[in-house]
Amino acid sequence: MEEGSEMRGKYVADISSIREAQERIKSFIHKTPVLSSETLNAVAGRRLFFKCEFFQKGGAFKFRGACNAVLSLDNDQAAKGVVTHSSGNHAAALSLAAKLRGIPAYIVIPESAPKCKVENVVRYGGQVIWSEATMQSRESVASKVLQETGAVLVHPYNDGRIISGQGTISLELLEQAPEIDTLIVPISGGGLISGVALAAKSINPAIRVFAAEPSGANDAAQSKEAGRIITLPETNTIADGLRAFLGDLTWPIVRDLVDDVITVEDKEIIEAMKLCYEILKVAVEPSGAIGLAAVLSDNFKKNRAWKNCNNIGIVLSGGNVDLGKLWDSFKQ
Amino acid sequence: MEEGSEMRGKYVADISSIREAQERIKSFIHKTPVLSSETLNAVAGRRLFFKCEFFQKGGAFKFRGACNAVLSLDNDQAAKGVVTHSSGNHAAALSLAAKLRGIPAYIVIPESAPKCKVENVVRYGGQVIWSEATMQSRESVASKVLQETGAVLVHPYNDGRIISGQGTISLELLEQAPEIDTLIVPISGGGLISGVALAAKSINPAIRVFAAEPSGANDAAQSKEAGRIITLPETNTIADGLRAFLGDLTWPIVRDLVDDVITVEDKEIIEAMKLCYEILKVAVEPSGAIGLAAVLSDNFKKNRAWKNCNNIGIVLSGGNVDLGKLWDSFKQ
Repeated sequence: MEEGSEMRGKYVADISSIREAQERIKSFIHKTPVLSSETLNAVAGRRLFFKCEFFQKGGAFKFRGACNAVLSLDNDQAAKGVVTHSSGNHAAALSLAAKLRGIPAYIVIPESAPKCKVENVVRYGGQVIWSEATMQSRESVASKVLQETGAVLVHPYNDGRIISGQGTISLELLEQAPEIDTLIVPISGGGLISGVALAAKSINPAIRVFAAEPSGANDAAQSKEAGRIITLPETNTIADGLRAFLGDLTWPIVRDLVDDVITVEDKEIIEAMKLCYEILKVAVEPSGAIGLAAVLSDNFKKNRAWKNCNNIGIVLSGGNVDLGKLWDSFKQ
Repeated sequence: MEEGSEMRGKYVADISSIREAQERIKSFIHKTPVLSSETLNAVAGRRLFFKCEFFQKGGAFKFRGACNAVLSLDNDQAAKGVVTHSSGNHAAALSLAAKLRGIPAYIVIPESAPKCKVENVVRYGGQVIWSEATMQSRESVASKVLQETGAVLVHPYNDGRIISGQGTISLELLEQAPEIDTLIVPISGGGLISGVALAAKSINPAIRVFAAEPSGANDAAQSKEAGRIITLPETNTIADGLRAFLGDLTWPIVRDLVDDVITVEDKEIIEAMKLCYEILKVAVEPSGAIGLAAVLSDNFKKNRAWKNCNNIGIVLSGGNVDLGKLWDSFKQ
């Protein structure tokens, strides 16, 4: 049977579009290493494989999707540039991808974005346009820029090109550690986990895919429970990258291919960041460390699949964290 | 001509003992990855290859030598255990190596050692015996333990088995990045750089090897200048792992095979740690980051070989740093 045949054409991306994305971006991205630690294996009682996307260009997995989107544009489209709104990592990634192609990137950033993420946008030559912190303000400012410039909107996650780009993580990871039987992936708008799940389940239909979500922004858990997209009036979590809600293109994939959502408390996220720093020796942001928090959580141990999860791939998704903030959170 | 033939038998270690060490330890150590960053390449104006020994077991390169030493002991020797005095990373490494062989490790630690390094010793089952901070007190306490237990002294650097173990870094690195024409390596007692230089110059006699040293503990620079081992009445540097002096076994190798010593100020070390954290996304201790500080220093740019150093391998040697201390140093 053809690889991933049941999923082909059913969603906005599939194993073919993900393999095409890999061909398109492979000379521009880092093939990120997989780390392991016997100390953390002992703590978790499982073998853990950490896919280090904080080492990706721009400091997060987002460059994969952004690069795929920018390189997919035809020359006429590309000339007018790209625009997006983002809490930071997608913004930096899109700026960098645009820079590589020599086209402008207009970046709408909420005032609440972490300083180091804004600095990355500026470092990569993106043009910063400020908005208020709400999703509504972000989208309306972006749509104004869109009209004025004729640039192409590259949504942070609700976009097939983005999902396909992020899915290349699974192609690499399952080659680096083929024994993986379970994947744990942060969920926010769902772009990352949609790509990862589509690719992983096409390669190995038996693989489990869990989402990791902060309890203070648990819209995905609620959506899976309700069987439809749930949005929240407000979110409250240290994981600034995980406050978005599912989109109409990511939801069907999350609904069908994500086995379960594991919610964790902020204090578990902080503890996971600390373990990343002290044991793995790496700088991971709160949103990036949530997969480790999920693996170590009671909620995971209560999951009925837990006893069968022996070799667990964890996507450490980003590393853009202000050191002062990190230290303050450790002292709490 | 036989590989490294001019150096065979001349020093306490050579390319043969280093290759033997690699065979002995390879199933116990991590083959550490090499990271690169276009941002840091641009800052340095050179291509940089970061050998990530902070990912080594125990958080530093020291495990290579300690593992080689412990596995070299015959069963009768091994049964009585091993003893050492160390500011921390060698201590943790020896504890871990002893634990793997199931023998006791007696560790003399100066009161001034960083907390996280002492915790590593305890984590790996080493028996901590405190001394004062001076080298004299460390050595006299160690010698007392030696008499009482009959254990084998494994010196942190002045030992052929240790030097051979550390030399395995070059075997890996020059395979991972054969284009390297220059190596920059922290220097303290000289165990690391002796092994690295012996292996590297046996493989490629044209390769340059520079030592990186804090100006507040510049005994190696002074020794090279004077043509004999110079010790200092006191040292003053944030790099707690770089306060030891050359030994009679490391000195001839440093004298003959280290092309030059680049001294840097503590503020340059702190800036390098910050770049490691913010750009490379890794936790590197002061002693571990000094190679990057050296590459970016004015002292390196003034070196007459500088214009020919195009592909530079930097050993980031350790990552055991208390986060609070790191943050305090950034605020200075």
